[in-house]
Amino acid sequence: MFNALEIMNILGVISFTISGASKGVKKELDLFGTIVLGIVTSYAGGIVADLLVGVIPPTILKQWQLLLLSISVSITTFFYYKQLNKKFLTLVLKVSDAIGLAAFAAYGAYLAYSHGFSLITVAMISSIVASGGGVLRDVLVNDVPLILTKEIYATAALSGGIVYYLVASISSQGYATVVTILTVITIRILAIKYNLHLPIIKAEVENR
Amino acid sequence: MFNALEIMNILGVISFTISGASKGVKKELDLFGTIVLGIVTSYAGGIVADLLVGVIPPTILKQWQLLLLSISVSITTFFYYKQLNKKFLTLVLKVSDAIGLAAFAAYGAYLAYSHGFSLITVAMISSIVASGGGVLRDVLVNDVPLILTKEIYATAALSGGIVYYLVASISSQGYATVVTILTVITIRILAIKYNLHLPIIKAEVENR
Amino acid sequence: MFNALEIMNILGVISFTISGASKGVKKELDLFGTIVLGIVTSYAGGIVADLLVGVIPPTILKQWQLLLLSISVSITTFFYYKQLNKKFLTLVLKVSDAIGLAAFAAYGAYLAYSHGFSLITVAMISSIVASGGGVLRDVLVNDVPLILTKEIYATAALSGGIVYYLVASISSQGYATVVTILTVITIRILAIKYNLHLPIIKAEVENR
Repeated sequence: MFNALEIMNILGVISFTISGASKGVKKELDLFGTIVLGIVTSYAGGIVADLLVGVIPPTILKQWQLLLLSISVSITTFFYYKQLNKKFLTLVLKVSDAIGLAAFAAYGAYLAYSHGFSLITVAMISSIVASGGGVLRDVLVNDVPLILTKEIYATAALSGGIVYYLVASISSQGYATVVTILTVITIRILAIKYNLHLPIIKAEVENR
Repeated sequence: MFNALEIMNILGVISFTISGASKGVKKELDLFGTIVLGIVTSYAGGIVADLLVGVIPPTILKQWQLLLLSISVSITTFFYYKQLNKKFLTLVLKVSDAIGLAAFAAYGAYLAYSHGFSLITVAMISSIVASGGGVLRDVLVNDVPLILTKEIYATAALSGGIVYYLVASISSQGYATVVTILTVITIRILAIKYNLHLPIIKAEVENR
Repeated sequence: MFNALEIMNILGVISFTISGASKGVKKELDLFGTIVLGIVTSYAGGIVADLLVGVIPPTILKQWQLLLLSISVSITTFFYYKQLNKKFLTLVLKVSDAIGLAAFAAYGAYLAYSHGFSLITVAMISSIVASGGGVLRDVLVNDVPLILTKEIYATAALSGGIVYYLVASISSQGYATVVTILTVITIRILAIKYNLHLPIIKAEVENR
């Protein structure tokens, strides 16, 4: 099981670093700022997950390999971002975002389930862990977080947590991990492909 | 005592969900975003409170009833927001904000006092818990938090924590809860009614 | 050792309160808002540090002396900010920022090292603790955090953590504290003086 957890962590860190570093370049941060945003985006979920279940200090703070990985991916993103085709870039960002969300949803669910928490706790922790990095990324550069504006984002992570709990209960945590990752990625891709979202009420009330 | 704690939690969740969801509609979020903002606003205080006193995992993450409650209130707010009279809406928002602040101030104070912390710790935790949800709500939609701009907000919560400690010391936690809630609501209402605030220095220094 | 820790805390609180309260005045907050921003900026690092290493409740929430200190410094900053020469003010802000960063880097490193954590954990916690207050200060008033835009900020704190670990390993935590503070201040001053930073890629890709 340790290997699956490690793989989720590595996948999540790579995906969210790409996502964070890309946003850094887009917001015209310099190399340092881009690296910091890459690290923050990819680390937030893991740190919050461990704090919520009481793993002190958070595991991710102990692994220099993940730090080196996040720095390398940030630097690569920084120097290749501009040279990539815009359409390809958008695809890379959406895919890495979906993978990151899925990996961290599974990581959060694994951690919460392993500590013996109930279905609702597993689902809640799963969605907090999966969306934490993206929220921090957007808040730091003054964007309204994707989680509030985009298609079925937190819901995908929440569903991942529920699926994890159910599959783990009747089968094993290994199967649960795989099914969760596939479920979350599928939901995200369907949401993006069919542009799933609910109606917007345009409020005419003036700002308080 | 458990019942009083439960009631505070329910009151706080309802009030802060209304406050968060209303802000979501005003910021033209769609239904999902509005629900997420309602949940985040009403959950932040309870999660932070439990992390600060070492309750792992945070109690609120275990209660699916509160999640359902927050979702229902968010949906109701979303669909009724526009139909309400503007004046009535402003009143609802101010009242629910005051009740939420009072409920979470009492919740934080109860938790900190029960763990045997000192007056200053109880007061600090009380004000962090009570203002946490509102701060997160405003940061997520890029507003400068109410706590920095509006009348005597954190101070009301801080006073609530102090009152709780003093009343609980000489009487019981039950009385302390009631007196704290009444104190915080009274301070907030007086602050709004008489528009209490302190002078603003208009700085002419250019931004760094 | 307790005294060194206390001194770091006091230094850090004074410096970060000046930094937070100044930003409050610049953003035209009233006196209450300025005090709150001063307290939040100076408290965030200590609270996060303690949560990450499992000190519950965070030490800083127990010390009314630090709260009084932070309030007094905020009030002083509020009333003297406008009267100060602009050049002198900029100098004060840069120096207090460097001292605060150094003090909290050393505080975080001390705490993590005392709990027996490894080099990478000490360095990571040190940089999170040192930059936490500034990040929260900027996020609350809707600025993009200094840590993402300015010269070698998180790096200075990270270096401080590494230096702390190495010096503490071969010598004592007392020496480590002094060397760390001097190292961080030196790096920050050199970074500002020689305007050290890395190239900015101007992205022409439209916002997603």
